[in-house]
Parts: sequence; structure tokens; C-alpha cells
Amino acid sequence: MSAPLVPVILCGGAGTRLWPVSREALPKPFMKLGDGRSLLRRTLDRAAGLSADCARIVTNRDYYFLSRDELAGALPTVAGKVRYLLEPAARNTAPAVALATLAVAQAQGENALLLVLPADHLIDDEVGFAACVDRAKALAADGWLVTFGIAANTPETAFGYIESGKALAHGAYEVRRFVEKPNLERAREFLTTGKYSWNSGIFCFRARDMLAALDQVAPALAAGARACWAASHEYAAGNKDAVELDRDTFSALESISIDYAVFEKAAKVAVVPGDFGWSDVGAWPEIAGQFRADAQHNRGSGRTLFIDSSQCFVHSEGRLVAVLGMKDTIVVDTPDALLVMPTVHAQDVTKVVEALRASGDDKHIYHNTLARPWGTYTVLQEGPRFKLKRLEVKPQHSLSLQMHHHRNEHWVVVSGTARVTSDEQVFLVGTNESTYIKAGTRHRLENPGMLPLVLIEVQSGEYVGEDDIVRFDDG
Amino acid sequence: MSAPLVPVILCGGAGTRLWPVSREALPKPFMKLGDGRSLLRRTLDRAAGLSADCARIVTNRDYYFLSRDELAGALPTVAGKVRYLLEPAARNTAPAVALATLAVAQAQGENALLLVLPADHLIDDEVGFAACVDRAKALAADGWLVTFGIAANTPETAFGYIESGKALAHGAYEVRRFVEKPNLERAREFLTTGKYSWNSGIFCFRARDMLAALDQVAPALAAGARACWAASHEYAAGNKDAVELDRDTFSALESISIDYAVFEKAAKVAVVPGDFGWSDVGAWPEIAGQFRADAQHNRGSGRTLFIDSSQCFVHSEGRLVAVLGMKDTIVVDTPDALLVMPTVHAQDVTKVVEALRASGDDKHIYHNTLARPWGTYTVLQEGPRFKLKRLEVKPQHSLSLQMHHHRNEHWVVVSGTARVTSDEQVFLVGTNESTYIKAGTRHRLENPGMLPLVLIEVQSGEYVGEDDIVRFDDG
Repeated sequence: MSAPLVPVILCGGAGTRLWPVSREALPKPFMKLGDGRSLLRRTLDRAAGLSADCARIVTNRDYYFLSRDELAGALPTVAGKVRYLLEPAARNTAPAVALATLAVAQAQGENALLLVLPADHLIDDEVGFAACVDRAKALAADGWLVTFGIAANTPETAFGYIESGKALAHGAYEVRRFVEKPNLERAREFLTTGKYSWNSGIFCFRARDMLAALDQVAPALAAGARACWAASHEYAAGNKDAVELDRDTFSALESISIDYAVFEKAAKVAVVPGDFGWSDVGAWPEIAGQFRADAQHNRGSGRTLFIDSSQCFVHSEGRLVAVLGMKDTIVVDTPDALLVMPTVHAQDVTKVVEALRASGDDKHIYHNTLARPWGTYTVLQEGPRFKLKRLEVKPQHSLSLQMHHHRNEHWVVVSGTARVTSDEQVFLVGTNESTYIKAGTRHRLENPGMLPLVLIEVQSGEYVGEDDIVRFDDG
Repeated sequence: MSAPLVPVILCGGAGTRLWPVSREALPKPFMKLGDGRSLLRRTLDRAAGLSADCARIVTNRDYYFLSRDELAGALPTVAGKVRYLLEPAARNTAPAVALATLAVAQAQGENALLLVLPADHLIDDEVGFAACVDRAKALAADGWLVTFGIAANTPETAFGYIESGKALAHGAYEVRRFVEKPNLERAREFLTTGKYSWNSGIFCFRARDMLAALDQVAPALAAGARACWAASHEYAAGNKDAVELDRDTFSALESISIDYAVFEKAAKVAVVPGDFGWSDVGAWPEIAGQFRADAQHNRGSGRTLFIDSSQCFVHSEGRLVAVLGMKDTIVVDTPDALLVMPTVHAQDVTKVVEALRASGDDKHIYHNTLARPWGTYTVLQEGPRFKLKRLEVKPQHSLSLQMHHHRNEHWVVVSGTARVTSDEQVFLVGTNESTYIKAGTRHRLENPGMLPLVLIEVQSGEYVGEDDIVRFDDG
């Protein structure tokens, strides 16, 4: 019987160059692309096509509920079989891979094969990718640590390169060396040799071989990861499908990539170069590439009007965007922030995020729609003495029992049915009905039904800040 | 006793090149500029500084209530003394001037001096302008039809020119000829002679002289205007301060400018050239010029962030606008529509408006905040089965008695006090309180107080279109 293949999805990456759609509270893996699926969802679907075995998602614990929401729509072969490793801090990929390997070794055995899939890139040719996975599995079963290389077709200076050495099998080579991001001249030289591919961050290996390599080339990390795994425990607030990595021991691990910590140093490292429509969608031009162009090479989502313009891209979430006489320009429009830049400046969006951080603004952290375990809320408008929100509560979910000192809340049910607790009373509020929660009242909002509950909340009062809330422990 | 000076404000002009801020339902004269005053309001303030006599505003009847709202904030010397001439159709300036002259002649006598002020440009130097008005008054009292010329300092091709002839007095000349918009070469020649000024559209004349000139050089228009004036009557729904021009006779008048109909043909025409900081603010670059520039020559209103950008202008109404790596670009951001263009394309905004018209969109007509005689309403959000509005009702104003078949309305008072009629009941709803109007109920909303009433309306129901309304005649 062949060893199980366990997809390990690394769901991280701030995606600051994709601001204002990607923000800290809802980063790149959760961005919806042209077909409405997020990068995480696409990676989950890809994993489902490759393996029927239990996948692992390694992500920050802040993204646990967001990730579970993505899973709800994924292919059924993987949907029921995902477990989470929740990171208490950002520590690059080596700690994540080390802990995932320990988790898989414990659950599926040391002969299990891991397939590490970062959820921050696109793969267009799933069939071509599956063929590479087959090659990688054969090598991994033979003790190789396998990296996936991307056939380099342009002299990219933003990627690391892998030089292929001796052929091991059809389409598989020993790695001769890893090369850091080169300058343009070197990148051009690499291209002419035909021996270089881009480092994709996708890996395949047997659990036992990664553990052995860690012990040998990164012993401090190996020992630290084992200590962290021993100290970690099931995530109490969740669905018993997650392990919360121990904060102290995890935070003590070195922040380093798995490439640098292990692959560049280990003895038996192979590369499988492939050409499966990989794109790291690191910045807006790659997102634009996902959309169909018009005759003037303009692309866009939403309501766009291009006049005397060419090679522009517009991301709109509902407003009309008119682009007049522009060339090679990117416009990214969200409900509370707008970005305009020439395509050639796409790598500099980080500067905007840095400026926002420096100014104390929070538009690089939050959207005006925020996800919560129970659903989402959107601030529609805020003014003196009032705030307007749209709440969507998932079926069978509930907000905590709470009280506000300064604000009254008026709830109008737009669709679904709400169960409302107001001090001692509990009652249902149906579609088109409303109720009123006076300041000082202990209250709770629940969706007891099978369909989403959509509710407009009008807050009014002398103070409508989010911090005017007292939560009661309600078991 | 010297003759009265009567300011006649022409409040028209679509301002399509100022889309998306200027739209048909709230055009250019009502646009708020840097200091928060609209062009109409500035013109009213200017008129108040020049004359204590009753001013006339000539405007489309659709703009009557909007104009009255502007007047509420204007200087008291003019605020109480304005009368309106309401046009049932757009007919350029000659019919407007002819009818205003008839109105003034009737009310203030044929010796009254009219000062025609279009409400679609800026004047920075009010003192310099007042000096020109004094010169013009002296000439007008002597029987001249006087035009105001703007000292030409650049070879503009977008304006008409006036050539000065023989000097009549200090800073006043006989007009030798009017010249249509020249090409660049001719405009440059004009500049070198020092004899040409731009045609500002500002005029001063005695009522009797204009009536005589109309009879002589535009007899059909003169007769038509007299017929229209005879058929016109007081505007019934208003404040007894307006005359509604008769639709049939007014619509039959030729659509022609007063320059072309009278000034280019009349015998005794003078020009007073001036240099009083005139700008026609016809397009976005002139609006930008009203704002202070930063070190990189960027200008903006609202929350803007310029990075590696220069000579850009951003108009924002609240959202964060980040401009990265752009040069010479204009971004105009409104709640429901966005425009991005290079400064050099500023004259082409009309193309956007034309494209919207052709596509059946209405973003060139309406804003999402709409003015009504009783106040304003803003559509905050619309979705399946619901619509959210913010209503602001002026003190002592009332909406009509009405009924909806398909929608329920939930009203939450955010500030002020509402008087609500709901079938047979009449009751008050105070700040932070709410009420519910079920579909099928005859209802009315009133603001009985002395402060504005601000209200959030949540409409819910199977159909929330604006046309689901039955209005009852309630005297």
C-alpha cells in the first residue's frame, strides 16, 4: 500500500502590494479572484483533486474562522477532512513546515508524504500540476526532498532561482544550487542556459526525511518545533478540528523560510520543473491578467467605463468607475479606500501601506466589512450620534450576550428570522419586522433558522463607539 | 436721484465637464467650492456687495428650491430681496435677459440699470470688479450697452474675444468687434496687440436701451418675449417670490445667446476690460486651482495620500484616496461614481457624460443625495428586499401624505423631533426613538421643530422601487 499524500496548505502572506483589497484583517489568501473563489479556496480545491487524505491548513489563529468559511464552499472530498494548525505569531515558513510535519507524522505516520501548498499563488493547469505531483511523489517515496520549479520564461528579478543538476528521472533533477533573486543581467544569463527554474515554494517530501533533515541542518529549529508541538493543545473555542500552537515556544522559533533553513542545506534535494500556469499574483498586474481584455487591452471588474484609454485595469466593487484618456494605469476601488497608480508602480503599493501605518490610519488593517465567527458586519455610515450597520448572521449562530451604556439599537430584519433576548424576554422577529434595544438592556441576537439572517442595525445615542460594550459570560 | 442697479443672476449651465460632481439634477452653479460656498452663493454675495436693490435670479424651474436653499445662507442685504424668473426650458441667455429686462422695467422702471451676472464663474478680486461695475454704470446711464472684458493673458482658444476700439472714458472703450473662439495662432496675435479681451458674459445696461436694441436688432425675440411676459404668472407652489414663465410662448423663443442676438449687432456697445481674477471654472483644472498645492504641486480636498506623485488633483468626499506614482492626473471621487483622467483630457469629460446617456445609465443626471423642497434624502444602500435612506427634513417642513403598497418603513430619529401621521393617529417621535409604518398605511412625516430632523429610513418589503407611492392631496 502506498503512503498517504497529505496536503499542507500554508495560508499566510500579508499581500500588502494588493492593498486596498488585501488588508491585515483579510489578507491575500482570502481575496476573491475573477471566478469568485479565493486563493485559499482554489488551493483547497486543488488539494481535493490530488488527495482524499486529511489536509492540514497552517494559518494565524486570527484567520481560523475565515478559513473555515472558505472550506464551507470547497469540494466535498477535502471539506470534511481538514485540520488546522493555528499560529500565534508570524514566523515565516520553516516553523510552519516543521510543525505540520510533526503533526502529520503523529497522525498518519512517518512514511506519510507531505505536499506543501502555499495559498498565495495561482495554478491554471491543474492537470499539468498533477503530473508534476506524481513525479514528486515517486522521488519523495525514495527519500528526496522535492521542490517544484517553475519553467522560467522571462528574466524575472523578483523570484529566487533553482539550478537543475543531474537528471534523476523523466522531468526530475538533482538540485545543483539555489540562487537568491538575481539582477536582470544574471536573470537573462540563467534563461539562456535552460537549466534554471523559479522557486515556487511548493514542496513534497516524506515526513521522516524532513524530520531527519531538520535534525541535521537546523537542529535548534527541530528541537524548538518538537517542544512547541509537545506544549500545544486543541483549540478550545473551535470545532475540535484545530491545534493552537503554544504561544511561548512558537514565538521563540527562528523566523526563517523552509528554503533557506532546510532545502539549501540538506543533502538529497530534487527539483521537478513544471510549466503549469503558475502565477504568484503578488501585485495588481497579475490580478489584472485574470480578466479578459477588451480591444484596447483594458480589463476590469464591476461597472467600468473606458474612454480613449488603453491597457488599464479597474477593480470596482459596485461604484461606476470612468477612466478617460489613461494608459497603463491601475485603479482599485473599494468601499472606503481607492488606489490609483501607473502599472509600473505596482510593486510600490507597500509604500502606501507604510504611510498609512505611520499616520496611525487603520485602512491597511480593516475593511469596512469585518468577519466574525458568527458572520459579518458592515459599517454603512457613521455620523454624529448615529451609526448604521448591516449584519449577516450565519444559520444557527449567535452573538454574545451584551449591553451598551450609551447607545440604543434599532434592528430591522431584512431577511430571515431573528431570536432576540432583551433582559428577561425572548422573542422572534421576522422579515420586515423590527425591534428596539434600549441602552442598558442585556441583549443577544441569534439566528435560529436555516437561512442567513440579514439585519439593519441603526445605533443612536450620545456615543456610538465600538468600545461601549459589556459582554456577559453565557457558557 | 441715480437709477437703481438691479443684479440679474443667470443660474444655468450644465457643467458637464465637471462630472461626476456636477450632474443634471445638481449642476455647476450649485457645486460647492473650496470655501464651502457654491458658485450661485458667491454670485449672490457679490450682488449683495454691489447693490441693495432687489435682485433677480433666472433659472430653470427645477432649480427653484435649490436656489432658495442657497439664498438662505447669503448676505442679508440681498437675501430678503430676491425674485425668481423660472424657465420651463433651456433657451440660452437671450430669452433670459430679455425677460429679466421686461420684469425689471415693469417693477423698477425703464431707467433701472441691469447688471447681468452668470453664476458659473469665479471672481477673486471683488474690489477690482466693483470698480469695473462703477465704470459700466456710468456708461450704461449714458445709453451704452456695456460688456465686461477679461484682460487676456494667455492665448485661450475656448473663449470668445472682444476687440476694443475708441476710448470712451478711463478704462472704457467702444467695441470694435466680437470674435468667435479663435485658433491658437490668431489667439496669439490678439495677445500681442493688447486690444483684445475675453468675453465674460457679464453685462450692464439700462432697461430702456436693451428693450430698444431688442426691438431694433432682434424684433422676433422682442415680440416673443413680450408675449411670454404677458402670459406668465406667479408661481403657485412657491413663496410668492417667483414668476413662472409661460411654457408655450417661452419654448417658442429662439435659443440664442444675448451676445449674438444683441451685442454683436447693436449700435452703441462698449467694453470695460478688467483684471479681477475671473475664472470660468469650466473644467476640473480650474477647480483644482482653488486649492493650495503641496511641495510636489499636488492639490486635493478630503482624505488624500500622494506618494511619488506630482501635479495631481484629488476631489474626495470622504473616502481615502491614495495616488501612487502619478503625474498630471485628476481623480474625482463621489459616493457613487469615480473619474480618473490626465489633466490634459479635462475638456473631454463630456464624452463620459455622453457615454452614460447613450448607455441608459442615470449617473449623469442624479446623485445619490437628492434635494427636495422639504430637505434632502440620500440612498445609503440598496439590496434585495431593502433600501436604506438618510432623510433630512428642514424645520417647519413636511413630506406629502402618502402610502406604499409593498414596502414597510422603519424610521429611527437620529436628531430632532418628528411628527408622524399614521392613518388616524398623529404622534411625536423624539431623538433615539423609532416608529414603524406598515405597507398600506397612509402616513406623513413632518418636522415641527426649529432644528433639522435627521432620520434613518429602513425600507423593507417585496418591492422597494421609488414608484410604489400613492400621494394624497392634502391641501
